[in-house]
Amino acid sequence: MNENVIKAALLGFGTVGTGVYKVLKNQEKEMSAKIGCKVEIKKILVRNIEKAAAKIEDASLLTSQWDEIINDPEIEIVIELMGGINPAKEYILSALKAGKHVVSANKDLIAVHGHELLDAAHESKVDFLFEAAVAGGIPIIRPLKQCLAGNHMTEVMGIVNGTTNFILTKMTQEGMEFKDALALATELGYAEADPTADIEGLDAGRKVAILASVAFNSRVVFNDVYTEGIAKITSKDIHYAKEMGRDIKLLGVARNEADGIEAYVCPMLIPSSHPLATVNDSYNAVFVHGDAVEDAMFFGRGAGELPTASAVVGDVFDIVRNILAGCCGRIGCTCYKNIPVKKMEDTHNRYFLRLKVEDRCGVLAEMTAIFAKYQVSVAQIIQKDTKVEGCAEVVVITEKVREGDFRTAIEELRNRDSVRKISTIIRVYGK
Amino acid sequence: MNENVIKAALLGFGTVGTGVYKVLKNQEKEMSAKIGCKVEIKKILVRNIEKAAAKIEDASLLTSQWDEIINDPEIEIVIELMGGINPAKEYILSALKAGKHVVSANKDLIAVHGHELLDAAHESKVDFLFEAAVAGGIPIIRPLKQCLAGNHMTEVMGIVNGTTNFILTKMTQEGMEFKDALALATELGYAEADPTADIEGLDAGRKVAILASVAFNSRVVFNDVYTEGIAKITSKDIHYAKEMGRDIKLLGVARNEADGIEAYVCPMLIPSSHPLATVNDSYNAVFVHGDAVEDAMFFGRGAGELPTASAVVGDVFDIVRNILAGCCGRIGCTCYKNIPVKKMEDTHNRYFLRLKVEDRCGVLAEMTAIFAKYQVSVAQIIQKDTKVEGCAEVVVITEKVREGDFRTAIEELRNRDSVRKISTIIRVYGK
Repeated sequence: MNENVIKAALLGFGTVGTGVYKVLKNQEKEMSAKIGCKVEIKKILVRNIEKAAAKIEDASLLTSQWDEIINDPEIEIVIELMGGINPAKEYILSALKAGKHVVSANKDLIAVHGHELLDAAHESKVDFLFEAAVAGGIPIIRPLKQCLAGNHMTEVMGIVNGTTNFILTKMTQEGMEFKDALALATELGYAEADPTADIEGLDAGRKVAILASVAFNSRVVFNDVYTEGIAKITSKDIHYAKEMGRDIKLLGVARNEADGIEAYVCPMLIPSSHPLATVNDSYNAVFVHGDAVEDAMFFGRGAGELPTASAVVGDVFDIVRNILAGCCGRIGCTCYKNIPVKKMEDTHNRYFLRLKVEDRCGVLAEMTAIFAKYQVSVAQIIQKDTKVEGCAEVVVITEKVREGDFRTAIEELRNRDSVRKISTIIRVYGK
Repeated sequence: MNENVIKAALLGFGTVGTGVYKVLKNQEKEMSAKIGCKVEIKKILVRNIEKAAAKIEDASLLTSQWDEIINDPEIEIVIELMGGINPAKEYILSALKAGKHVVSANKDLIAVHGHELLDAAHESKVDFLFEAAVAGGIPIIRPLKQCLAGNHMTEVMGIVNGTTNFILTKMTQEGMEFKDALALATELGYAEADPTADIEGLDAGRKVAILASVAFNSRVVFNDVYTEGIAKITSKDIHYAKEMGRDIKLLGVARNEADGIEAYVCPMLIPSSHPLATVNDSYNAVFVHGDAVEDAMFFGRGAGELPTASAVVGDVFDIVRNILAGCCGRIGCTCYKNIPVKKMEDTHNRYFLRLKVEDRCGVLAEMTAIFAKYQVSVAQIIQKDTKVEGCAEVVVITEKVREGDFRTAIEELRNRDSVRKISTIIRVYGK
């Protein structure tokens, strides 16, 4: 084995895989000066060799046989970019057990089985790093584990899905409706053929699970995260929100409260003056709050070939530095607490509620009486003089209330004859 | 020596020193689980023990004798928060030579003597970390050295001085003039009794030197950085800038161009839609551009007791992890290139120019003829119908032009009878 070269294998050669290959090529001349040795991709695992061959000069690197990688003692680092649970999980586990270091961008896997993978890495004293699994190129996992380690983090939240942020930006800036904005996102390649994981908030939910685990030193898995998508948002909601000084964003939120962790993804109104309100198009941003650092925000490209590759290669270089310094596994799992995760109905939120009511005297009184019964206080209310289908449209922003109580109030409202339609309910971020 | 405790000394017990002490106290219960052992402050070096005793429960930690720290083999980490060049430099160098690790927030020192300090750390195989020296609590040094190591960074710029950002925010949002905003900043404790280092851009210049060195892997020292302050900015300039879709911020800019590094601090107009335009009050933000990550931004508190302590303690914890993993000095100096730094007159910029000219036919033609002679193209121009002291006020934004050529054009303008006064020249950020 050449002392000045560390060999790695790529699993998967899709968008991020080609990006990692390019970024390593771009760094080739400087690597030795920068990190003490060269990193060479020795093998690339692909399903279809012929298809992949079109994307690379030296097709001899391609293989469809995992055995060629796991059994090659020269390969010290495995870079998993295939996505999905299987066979990625088996491959990663067997690589770790074989003493190989692993870098992964696989949020689906880590949000569910992260614990098992980190344990396996710990047992073999190797590194398992996953900076690219959350918010693409934006450095966030390492800053949380290292730079901000002197904090008790109380909140980590943000815009962690570029597809939905693009859609909401188009709806906000150009008044488009959801389905037209989605069609545009698909046309431009921002949305996948099956956009469910993005628009239903599942992708963001996986990232929230990982972020919460790292920020609060306590394991949160995907199943703990409540998710709600943006398909129900209309340009009318966005318009009313603006009138109330707010924008609508799909937020992933994790909060470490006295009675447990809150973790959810849902569209939310945020003040237009909040730094996240200006994060538009496919950009991502993660906002954190800690007892020492106070507020901090990390902004950048949450996806894409080269930005995601930037995070992957950062991890690879870190592993190389660990190998050369003889300190592999230097920072492993940081979940040393066991904090319960709260049910969504036990969280306290403010709500934006748009509804159609009968246009007669006493209806508002009826509505607010039901609110009062369940401790729902009104913070802002708009009722325009214009009638819609013979009804008055009322838009309310409430004060903070327990979600379970709010839901009961809504059910009671829904059963009143005077309430013709509950058009939208959206949570409101902030105190 | 107790295996589970690593002992440290604080040099200086001012704002950041007390902050570090508090943050370590706040982390006391969790430290062992988080990083593998406890960190205990064994000694605190102060000039005046009596004064410092009021700030701490256990006054026996206080000493005015450096000998008690440098000669104590139990003290493995020295945390230098005294500021200034001397005696901080001697203390740090002797600590490093004695095999002690050093964390420093001392930008004045690092921006000038960083090389020597990092070399000394390398020789002794110890760590010298300085995350807190730039942008307070915001993680930026470690993200650049590790997370973004797979990039060729082409630009790092931002708002890295909270005092001037507070002043400019007040001038922008409340129409205050510079001296009133400075008086308010002083009253609120944002500006020091002698605010020169802040308002003249010297503090920001030191941070730019450090950021450029880390981002471009090539040494830039304070002396290489051109600095210009904000005292000349008037609310009128801000008003005209707004009219042209821009805000005025004190920016620190470092760019890695084909013909060398550009590094400067000066007030600049930036588009109001730029993420940095919304960074207000005493907040800081650093914007970076790399060939892989594209744009990324780091935002947060650039100063203050606990935010700065957050960065210091992050470094201390990293050293502890290195000590326990046996890999001290794992990442040292990353300046392996030797790129020249350009003179300010060789940089290319756009300019905002406000001037008073004689109110007669042909004056604009005269002005634009001089511009044309030196390749200065006009991008935007405003001349209002209102006359000021019998003169017309003209505001121009130019296209990009070599600074040296622009300066010559301005000298020629200044000598014309028709030009009564060149009121302001401010650079414009962007293409």
